Amino acid sequence: MNKYAVNGVDISVDCVVFGFDGESLKLLLIEQSPAENFPKEKLQFALPGDLVQEEEGLDDSAARVLKELTSLEGIYLKQFHTFGDPNRVKGLKDQDWLRTFRANPDQRVITVGYYSLVRMEDYQPEASSFARNASWIDVNDVPSLAFDHNDIVDEGIKTLREELDSKYIGFELLPDKFTLGQLQLLYEIILDKKLDKRNFRKNIKKMDQVIPLDEKQQGVLHKPAQLFRFERDEELK
Amino acid sequence: MNKYAVNGVDISVDCVVFGFDGESLKLLLIEQSPAENFPKEKLQFALPGDLVQEEEGLDDSAARVLKELTSLEGIYLKQFHTFGDPNRVKGLKDQDWLRTFRANPDQRVITVGYYSLVRMEDYQPEASSFARNASWIDVNDVPSLAFDHNDIVDEGIKTLREELDSKYIGFELLPDKFTLGQLQLLYEIILDKKLDKRNFRKNIKKMDQVIPLDEKQQGVLHKPAQLFRFERDEELK
Repeated sequence: MNKYAVNGVDISVDCVVFGFDGESLKLLLIEQSPAENFPKEKLQFALPGDLVQEEEGLDDSAARVLKELTSLEGIYLKQFHTFGDPNRVKGLKDQDWLRTFRANPDQRVITVGYYSLVRMEDYQPEASSFARNASWIDVNDVPSLAFDHNDIVDEGIKTLREELDSKYIGFELLPDKFTLGQLQLLYEIILDKKLDKRNFRKNIKKMDQVIPLDEKQQGVLHKPAQLFRFERDEELK
Repeated sequence: MNKYAVNGVDISVDCVVFGFDGESLKLLLIEQSPAENFPKEKLQFALPGDLVQEEEGLDDSAARVLKELTSLEGIYLKQFHTFGDPNRVKGLKDQDWLRTFRANPDQRVITVGYYSLVRMEDYQPEASSFARNASWIDVNDVPSLAFDHNDIVDEGIKTLREELDSKYIGFELLPDKFTLGQLQLLYEIILDKKLDKRNFRKNIKKMDQVIPLDEKQQGVLHKPAQLFRFERDEELK
């Protein structure tokens, strides 16, 4: 059965953490740290990610790696896709870094992608380990990243948009009581497109989970809008 | 940076292929084949799965492995979750098989799960390679499986149920023109619960993708029901 024998591969995790600040969608990126003699012009931006350790589960690994590189913890990280292109770390741009940091730089690496969406104001990244910087960067300004991390970000954004519709993940970023204008803005920022106000409201009204309240905004200069709150399916039953 | 060095792991793919026959939901399983001197009482049912080969991408690997073990091909397999518990292949029940079939039976194996939902009548499995049997088994009668495959099946069913609502995958299993009764039966079988007819119809009517036709069933003994067809979002725009 020798044709089934494969040389071991390395396995890593990469974290795509989105932050919402009420006005834009940001992505948490690190800058790779210069090792001794590491050519500064070859430093790259990257997702927070690293190899999984022996005896470590994948979810635990993602939480550990995110904390080690950015100091963020207590974030719900959800596995969304595994990236296994045989050449995904073989690019010339990545070879110097791999030779400095990895025991076996030529090894194939398969990476498990995790993602999260958080209120940006709740999390202040601080770089450590091999990150020399960790910061929020607008998703529209993401630079060229190490390895295949731009592809991983694209897939993360795709997942985010799908879950926005099917899992209602966006509501966690709004105040408990919100206006339909705030909700539409959130959708527009995550979907990166303008939505027709009338259609949007028609679709939202079909959602049993969005409950109109007998309350209006207070302290606003314009005409106060009606407030709504969100109830998860479990609460509706 | 030695604490980041991990010994290589093995990577495999496992396929959770669901079949629908109009009346029940089935799962494609293999029986592990007896090698010379392999104790017959230790044979187990398992998902079709095997190690990824060098230079092989994950999607390609899933398609190859499914074909090698069950002869099924041309099936759209979608990656849904990666399973990496450090002890997932360390169970006693799996040791004899691993020692017979794997070059390095003690190696940690991380597996990438793929799933699919097909019309059962279109696919007749035929066992080959290390499968001695490949067959459709009712999801309610799934036996104890090798490794953590029962967990993988459970996660596959969870994914199937989520995608039924958000991705409309069920419609591909129905005739082009269908009744709401047929649609409800499909949902009930996949969700494994009875649905309230009135609520179900109310929810379906909210879906712009389900188009009522000016046509009724023909050749039925009972009162003929109205027919509907399904249009994907892209077609509606």
